[in-house]
Amino acid sequence: MILISDNIHVMNPKVAKAMNDMDTKPIRDLASRIKNSGANIIDINPGPLRKDCSKMMAFLINSVQDATHLRLCLDTPNPEAIETGLTICKDKPIINGFSLEPHKMEKILPLAVDSDAETVGFLLHADGKVPRSLDERLALAFTLAREAKKAGLPPERLIIDPIVVPISWEDGTAQARDVLSCIRLLPDLLGFPVKTVVGLSNLTSGAGAKTASLLIEEAYLAMLAEAGLDIVLLNVLRKRSVATAFICDSIKNSRIWSWAEHDVWFLNT
Amino acid sequence: MILISDNIHVMNPKVAKAMNDMDTKPIRDLASRIKNSGANIIDINPGPLRKDCSKMMAFLINSVQDATHLRLCLDTPNPEAIETGLTICKDKPIINGFSLEPHKMEKILPLAVDSDAETVGFLLHADGKVPRSLDERLALAFTLAREAKKAGLPPERLIIDPIVVPISWEDGTAQARDVLSCIRLLPDLLGFPVKTVVGLSNLTSGAGAKTASLLIEEAYLAMLAEAGLDIVLLNVLRKRSVATAFICDSIKNSRIWSWAEHDVWFLNT
Repeated sequence: MILISDNIHVMNPKVAKAMNDMDTKPIRDLASRIKNSGANIIDINPGPLRKDCSKMMAFLINSVQDATHLRLCLDTPNPEAIETGLTICKDKPIINGFSLEPHKMEKILPLAVDSDAETVGFLLHADGKVPRSLDERLALAFTLAREAKKAGLPPERLIIDPIVVPISWEDGTAQARDVLSCIRLLPDLLGFPVKTVVGLSNLTSGAGAKTASLLIEEAYLAMLAEAGLDIVLLNVLRKRSVATAFICDSIKNSRIWSWAEHDVWFLNT
Repeated sequence: MILISDNIHVMNPKVAKAMNDMDTKPIRDLASRIKNSGANIIDINPGPLRKDCSKMMAFLINSVQDATHLRLCLDTPNPEAIETGLTICKDKPIINGFSLEPHKMEKILPLAVDSDAETVGFLLHADGKVPRSLDERLALAFTLAREAKKAGLPPERLIIDPIVVPISWEDGTAQARDVLSCIRLLPDLLGFPVKTVVGLSNLTSGAGAKTASLLIEEAYLAMLAEAGLDIVLLNVLRKRSVATAFICDSIKNSRIWSWAEHDVWFLNT
């Protein structure tokens, strides 16, 4: 499983302050910690609503690239900020992402097609609403994949996000179950080995870092791994979550297990 | 998911000492703790090799039944001890279990048929060896279910154990993966909704209660839940493992989530 850090996010108060002060040091320090966490990719989320989104995207990317060579993921619905990111990223980033919402189909999908970048497609209705059943998710995936192909995006560059919602929603556990089924069914439904990603932190959104919410995150991550998830966006500074991903990956890919090696890995988790 | 406590086991030094002293108090105390853990069933394992296996089975059952009304599971390859257990259990116990080993087919399976008890069938070769691939497990399951039916055991009373092995075995992660696939495939293979059980502690056998082994247990339990496991035999005094089972069950059965309720549940996990 590929791990994308969700830590460089405007909702993180330290990141917000650094953006406000245009101070690269806190971002570089955080990027160094992320690099040492086991993350494979770093998501860059300057927030959706800022007028100076492109400027902030550039500030964050340059700060992060000063501290690490990890690949980046451009997490914004702002097309200009994506264009800026595509220009200054040293490695080809992932675009995160588009959906069937018309403005995203018109502005973001073409950027993905033209840039040769991998791109996340969210299973959201055209009005931006979250699907509320497995059937809705599968129907959206079918339409999204068809439209992406029609626009010229090769299937191997599409990464589908079936949308994890807070478990505390009235239908939160049912949606969590539907996301698992969706991940399992998508390759057969679409007829190619489509990659999948979820934003894990959404599951316990609002619940903070309580014991219960951390344990739920770990348990659901293991269920997602068993269902066949390829990529997870998560707080990589939660060592137990990263270790859970590593354990599940060892099992799914039947890597030889060494307690000695893993004792070191798990130290202080 | 149904939780069976594996704590009343001769390998537990406190249980061994109580058996040696024929002292019911430590067993009653342990049974009370198990009752409060969230367990649904208590496995009774007096050890396979004792000459006085029936006597020890009776001692453990009577002690446990003094402290709790939970259903029991008779975990022994000794047919006499199973007969004793069937006589004194207040509720119908689970017999744990038989396999294609000839002496178990001849002595234990008929006890299961005659007693109307649910029975665990282990996916072991006729010589007692553990299968080393998914194909071997599926072939053994097919033969085991056929032979059980032929002997008169109704399919709904068969519980298949695909055999979890230590993850530290050379092929431990591959076997862990095969067990997941086996659990997922069995209902279609056998043509009925066969129940499945695993002994979770085997996965980290010999590794003790290190952070890493506990985390592996939790992660694999969540993967098993997603694969469709019905019943798990585990150390129910590991609160995080029990909580993991509870979280996965809430998702699989889409029960409404309440943080308030779960904060209480997870307290001190």
